[in-house]
Amino acid sequence: DTKENGGGVTRILPSDSVINLDHGDPTMYEAFWRKMGDRCTVVIKGYEHLSYFSTNKNPCWFLEPKLEESIRSLHGAVGNAETDGYTIVVGTGSSQLLQAVLYAVSPQDQPNPISVVSAAPYYSSYPETTDIVKSGLYKWAGDAHGFDKDEPYIEFVTSPNNPNGVIRGPVVNRAGGIVVHDLAYYWPQYTPITSSIDFDIMLFTASKCTGHAGSRIGWALVKDKEVAKRMISFMVVNSIGVSKESQLRVAKILQVVADGCKRFGSPDGDNFFEFGRNAMAKRWEILREIVKKTQMFTLPKYPLQHCNYTGELTQAHPAFAWIKCKDEMEDCEELFKGHKVLVRSGRRFGSDPGYARVSMMGKDDEFNQFIERLTSVIQMCSGDHHGIN
Amino acid sequence: DTKENGGGVTRILPSDSVINLDHGDPTMYEAFWRKMGDRCTVVIKGYEHLSYFSTNKNPCWFLEPKLEESIRSLHGAVGNAETDGYTIVVGTGSSQLLQAVLYAVSPQDQPNPISVVSAAPYYSSYPETTDIVKSGLYKWAGDAHGFDKDEPYIEFVTSPNNPNGVIRGPVVNRAGGIVVHDLAYYWPQYTPITSSIDFDIMLFTASKCTGHAGSRIGWALVKDKEVAKRMISFMVVNSIGVSKESQLRVAKILQVVADGCKRFGSPDGDNFFEFGRNAMAKRWEILREIVKKTQMFTLPKYPLQHCNYTGELTQAHPAFAWIKCKDEMEDCEELFKGHKVLVRSGRRFGSDPGYARVSMMGKDDEFNQFIERLTSVIQMCSGDHHGIN
Repeated sequence: DTKENGGGVTRILPSDSVINLDHGDPTMYEAFWRKMGDRCTVVIKGYEHLSYFSTNKNPCWFLEPKLEESIRSLHGAVGNAETDGYTIVVGTGSSQLLQAVLYAVSPQDQPNPISVVSAAPYYSSYPETTDIVKSGLYKWAGDAHGFDKDEPYIEFVTSPNNPNGVIRGPVVNRAGGIVVHDLAYYWPQYTPITSSIDFDIMLFTASKCTGHAGSRIGWALVKDKEVAKRMISFMVVNSIGVSKESQLRVAKILQVVADGCKRFGSPDGDNFFEFGRNAMAKRWEILREIVKKTQMFTLPKYPLQHCNYTGELTQAHPAFAWIKCKDEMEDCEELFKGHKVLVRSGRRFGSDPGYARVSMMGKDDEFNQFIERLTSVIQMCSGDHHGIN
Repeated sequence: DTKENGGGVTRILPSDSVINLDHGDPTMYEAFWRKMGDRCTVVIKGYEHLSYFSTNKNPCWFLEPKLEESIRSLHGAVGNAETDGYTIVVGTGSSQLLQAVLYAVSPQDQPNPISVVSAAPYYSSYPETTDIVKSGLYKWAGDAHGFDKDEPYIEFVTSPNNPNGVIRGPVVNRAGGIVVHDLAYYWPQYTPITSSIDFDIMLFTASKCTGHAGSRIGWALVKDKEVAKRMISFMVVNSIGVSKESQLRVAKILQVVADGCKRFGSPDGDNFFEFGRNAMAKRWEILREIVKKTQMFTLPKYPLQHCNYTGELTQAHPAFAWIKCKDEMEDCEELFKGHKVLVRSGRRFGSDPGYARVSMMGKDDEFNQFIERLTSVIQMCSGDHHGIN
């Protein structure tokens, strides 16, 4: 039940199957990578990369030198983040690095754990990642807007934000604060690149950049060498480094993206970000159109901004749609569940159940089915509102 | 400075370079994997394995079905562990799984963390892995021999033991105890396989089984489905699963090992465990001979046992040599350091500095240099003992 069409793939989903848009599984990029053919193929022999060690020239001894090279080259080509003078720490996805950062920046000698905050709506994994083993070093303290303690804290700033796509800065802004920038979505397919960022601690992940979520490769750009060293120590205890196979494959893929992305608007079609931005823009156009047809839902609006990378005025096309039911009484997650679309409730993001987060990164058929079902939600509810009920 | 010799590789190490036998980096198996040529080569295309998900037929949704198959097939072929009725949880090395186990079996509702113990000498990573983020769920409580509290506990049983190669069972043996079996070294190259083990929680790793430490693949065989589910939850929060590339490569390698290991003593030379056992046996013979020549060091003795896998009476040839200085005043780690051989002090294993752990899994040239330097340690010290001092 798979048919090829022009490099893309259409799978025929039964019209009554459950559509899972709860996770941000970035499978929409498959068509691009198919088109690239063998340019990203990796071949690894049985005797290669046996050792725990990747290099003796770097404090991060488990980081493959080729991956480091590709990461620096990609940020340079896109212009979204500075890498000069930064230590790169590789992780099993950026989730593991988030824990490495918590460990690295938390005071070791305090009787009470340091507070960890993020402005709501915040990424739903932050509370559980922070508190899973009830650390005595750090503790989730909720919405940064409500943080009023006069003591040190760690603030996660996700920009563009997950779930709502908004560009953000820190909100607490007090002495003794350590700000961690989660920039997973700061790539041209999702948002205008307005500057090359140079914060102290910046987290990125291949999952959202190129769609290679299965590889579990994230990286941190860290200005302070001592913080980087402590993160490396955490990684050694947590998993004695990171898969060499994934590192080598992602190294190749990032280099192909970096090489191909220098020509925006080229006829070759080998610019990954152009493919991604066009695909996202199209989906958002379709979604906005159907949402406009009714009074039931609203979507965030994003400002037009100059993107230094494309050279164009453009608005954001985020990886998630942050949908709000206009009817205040409505549980948005439940509403979609009734139509067999799994989405994530606003509650999970420290917000209210009138909101839900819907992945915009799924396969074409998942997105199309979602749009179809949205149409039927609207029709049904219009019937409820204007009919005999 | 690399020359091939009959499938093996000899690198010329400068005679004054530092030999690092502190880590258990299992690079000695490289020659075998070279000999296997393309049988273990993996090829992964750019568009493959994008998704976080590997399967929807398994609670461990990030486990590649081929890896599960190979793991079951390998344990079946070797006869070292039962897999029927067990849930397999894959991890980024067995270190990550150890933390998943701690999370899964610790009570969530207690005011005080549960005690975690292991009989000294214990694997040096247990204390730091348990205590790194000062969890409120579990806490390192040291040598199991000294554990006398009348309360629940978790006991790590490493068998064969790291550092000393001894076959072990639990030592606390009290009600409310949860025993976790770390079986990283329970493979025929290291120890006689005397039974097919069926404990509740068993940990294994590709690193020590086949030497693919860079892949960071470990697996747990878990009898209780609820414990397995909680381990899976931990893995999702800690790293949202495990590298697909590593899983697929290790799946292929374990299958090649499983297929090749059915014929022990075959002339093909494609039995990995035969290669491994012969290589380890030869190294141990050389080491025992040189140690015997002097009164300076001792090595543990291992009983002759019937190995169900090889069908022979054999003794253990552990992955590490647990060396004891006979002179009680000697710091064994420092002694070797003076000869530019890095080893791990007995102190790190909850034992005393008269002991040191030395990796027996390094490259041929590292092992040979180690033996040469051991000769010079002995000569120098003999000089000290019998000369003008």
